[in-house]
Amino acid sequence: MSMAIEDIDRKFFFHPFTNTRTHEKTGPLTMVTGSGSTIVDTQGRSYLDAMAGLWCVNIGYGNIEMAEVLRRQAEKLAYYHTFASMGNEPVAELAERLVTMAPGPMSKVFFGNSGSDANDSQVKMVWYYNNVLGRPQKKKIIARSRGYHGVTVMSASLCGLPGMHKAFDLPLPMVKHVRAPHRLWENASGLSDEEFVAALADDLEQTILAEGPETVAAFIAEPIQAAGGVIVPPAGYFPAIQEVLRRYDVLLIADEVVCGFGRTGNAFGSNTFDIEPDMMTVAKGITSAYMPLSACIVSEKVWDVLRSGSDTYGVFQHGYTYSAHPLAAAAALANLSIIERDGLTQQAKSRGDYLNGRLRAVFAGHPMVAEVRGFGLLGAVEFASSTSPLTPFDPIGSFSTPVVARMRELGIISRALPNADSIAFSPPFVVTEAEIDSMVEGARQAVDDVTAALNLAS
Amino acid sequence: MSMAIEDIDRKFFFHPFTNTRTHEKTGPLTMVTGSGSTIVDTQGRSYLDAMAGLWCVNIGYGNIEMAEVLRRQAEKLAYYHTFASMGNEPVAELAERLVTMAPGPMSKVFFGNSGSDANDSQVKMVWYYNNVLGRPQKKKIIARSRGYHGVTVMSASLCGLPGMHKAFDLPLPMVKHVRAPHRLWENASGLSDEEFVAALADDLEQTILAEGPETVAAFIAEPIQAAGGVIVPPAGYFPAIQEVLRRYDVLLIADEVVCGFGRTGNAFGSNTFDIEPDMMTVAKGITSAYMPLSACIVSEKVWDVLRSGSDTYGVFQHGYTYSAHPLAAAAALANLSIIERDGLTQQAKSRGDYLNGRLRAVFAGHPMVAEVRGFGLLGAVEFASSTSPLTPFDPIGSFSTPVVARMRELGIISRALPNADSIAFSPPFVVTEAEIDSMVEGARQAVDDVTAALNLAS
Repeated sequence: MSMAIEDIDRKFFFHPFTNTRTHEKTGPLTMVTGSGSTIVDTQGRSYLDAMAGLWCVNIGYGNIEMAEVLRRQAEKLAYYHTFASMGNEPVAELAERLVTMAPGPMSKVFFGNSGSDANDSQVKMVWYYNNVLGRPQKKKIIARSRGYHGVTVMSASLCGLPGMHKAFDLPLPMVKHVRAPHRLWENASGLSDEEFVAALADDLEQTILAEGPETVAAFIAEPIQAAGGVIVPPAGYFPAIQEVLRRYDVLLIADEVVCGFGRTGNAFGSNTFDIEPDMMTVAKGITSAYMPLSACIVSEKVWDVLRSGSDTYGVFQHGYTYSAHPLAAAAALANLSIIERDGLTQQAKSRGDYLNGRLRAVFAGHPMVAEVRGFGLLGAVEFASSTSPLTPFDPIGSFSTPVVARMRELGIISRALPNADSIAFSPPFVVTEAEIDSMVEGARQAVDDVTAALNLAS
Repeated sequence: MSMAIEDIDRKFFFHPFTNTRTHEKTGPLTMVTGSGSTIVDTQGRSYLDAMAGLWCVNIGYGNIEMAEVLRRQAEKLAYYHTFASMGNEPVAELAERLVTMAPGPMSKVFFGNSGSDANDSQVKMVWYYNNVLGRPQKKKIIARSRGYHGVTVMSASLCGLPGMHKAFDLPLPMVKHVRAPHRLWENASGLSDEEFVAALADDLEQTILAEGPETVAAFIAEPIQAAGGVIVPPAGYFPAIQEVLRRYDVLLIADEVVCGFGRTGNAFGSNTFDIEPDMMTVAKGITSAYMPLSACIVSEKVWDVLRSGSDTYGVFQHGYTYSAHPLAAAAALANLSIIERDGLTQQAKSRGDYLNGRLRAVFAGHPMVAEVRGFGLLGAVEFASSTSPLTPFDPIGSFSTPVVARMRELGIISRALPNADSIAFSPPFVVTEAEIDSMVEGARQAVDDVTAALNLAS
């Protein structure tokens, strides 16, 4: 007699970002098929996926054009490596397309498999860059509280989420953190946006001066902090930050893993928020998750130095077996063409405006809601046990976690964000307005049900 | 007028493990299609690939069964995440299959995208393990000279190849290295295998004692060191090493990225070399490179501790967006079924015996050849400017690099291994004896041509 797939999972599969003890008891929710914004489990039950997987299935599930592209490239050449000047056709075309799309004077594209490995590569490139320039001390990386940049030893160090550090002896000592541009929790004194931005830029400058500018190599930031709470920067934030970085010759790495390829209504979050990155990290939306793929897009300024490193160091001794995997590159090319042909970047903006309008209309003034925020096709609702004075639930997440569980019962998948007690919205770009209505109404129903269940309503 | 693909590549693509300066001048060799052990470039020129890509295309190029599996799974569910107890069918089946195949009492499988990220995950798991056990000091990792374990900041630290460290400020300080079991260079005093093994085990023990056993958490080793020179351990090496590790409660991580899934004639190199790992890293051969996929296979002993960590730390806060990607899992299941159905593990052994026999017959006694070595379907020929006394070429690689270039002109792709002045052989399991003959004869021709060109022949 064969075991049910759920029992096999419980017995053999070590899930990422999961409570392993609980999982062995309760088992998985196993998904089988998907189409558009809908996924279906082993019981035939459908869910509207308000998260597009993990902020990534931008063209939606079950795209048969993608399936056909994968078959065709797999028959032709599923894989060949790109070490030692070896190349393949899809990846050269993709590199050209990325440099052409990217803001500013970008030059070259280095490929990996995930946002985690790409941010890890960025740090290695930054160190190499300063070694080539003869600045061996200039190696520290400044990241931000609430940032999410991945899970390798280095990229998890860049994250600003304490729960990701505690059990793993992180961050590494060369990573420093500054405050997030999060009005709700970092602006208790009620500064104007302009004053708040000036304070954050000053914090960064004081941190650089305290560490010693000759030791600070780079600053990494998501245009919108996604997993940290969908935190949209105040107007003028990035220009003010960049002024400080330039003063001390500190490189700016834009982590576009979530924002890249349309989610903010432009090709990149950097376009939307006036970011002029020296290096960009992309992943997720580059293939809409049909294939693992990431990339570091490197500016002319940085490339000129990296290239000259070959005079000193010879071969650039960094790269993944699957760097520039032809099947992944073919998937990315097809995905980007679908986004362009179907006008999905513009659609992400219009559906995003609709989503954010609905979230504000439905949650404004709710006694448990501390803030509704979002931009483009990203939104979040943050909860607090009291809004006046602002008091978080204890522990953080004790409201958003049951809300997400209740939403799932109602057939809507959202995500409780760590360190923010927020539920997130990041649906596929192909989501319809009617589906957005269902997602938002399901969320409101769940919030009301949890409020009642916890006897919180006044 | 459109640019040639080679010019697009030179202009936009930042190649891994490539001399970036040279590449901008010479451009790529761009591959277009492949079938079996043969790949074809944009000029229609065919090459016998003696390296199976990068030790990975084990079932050979252009397998249309794989292409069809990819299409079918992509139509059904290309991607859904596995955070927060979410699951999918192919990955549960794959986890079961891996635990069932693996030697020893293995328990659970954690998935990633590359050997690099899997080894990075192993280190995080080892640290977590010792934090759960209340041993916050027990965190150092011992690796070996000539080892290859990947390129993230952490996994590159584990490597024992100085060229991978120099420009990147590595290794991190918690990684220590001991000697490789390489008779040619580490056994100058001519010890017997038994004496050499005892000396290496004693070196390891002295290193652990010098660092303090309470600070040493794990030892990582490839069964056969691949990129470091195809270094086959002497008989009794791993049992002797394991005795030392057990004495000091140090975990053993077997890096099976190259050896796993048949290349040594057994499912794993651990079977072949009497390794009893606490954790195993697999990648490459798990999908024959048709999809990026890696896994950490964790023993009962380690899992029991990790699981109990949820009581202290709650959610295990580690995992990749593409951990357990359904398309990658489906590719792995199909690949493992093809290997099993077609008897490719046994074939790897018999073709490997043939390859190693031919290499020994053709290169024995050649004045430039210091050693011919190999096991299973892995082989290498190491060069030296003199064998008596043994004198390396200066710089290392100055013989193997032109040999590989000449082999390519002859239509054979091999690889010059860094730090070993060796050429490597790791063809697909489907390689024919006639193809092996061509590879070995091409190598001999190239060695003779380079010997003549450099005026080395006596």
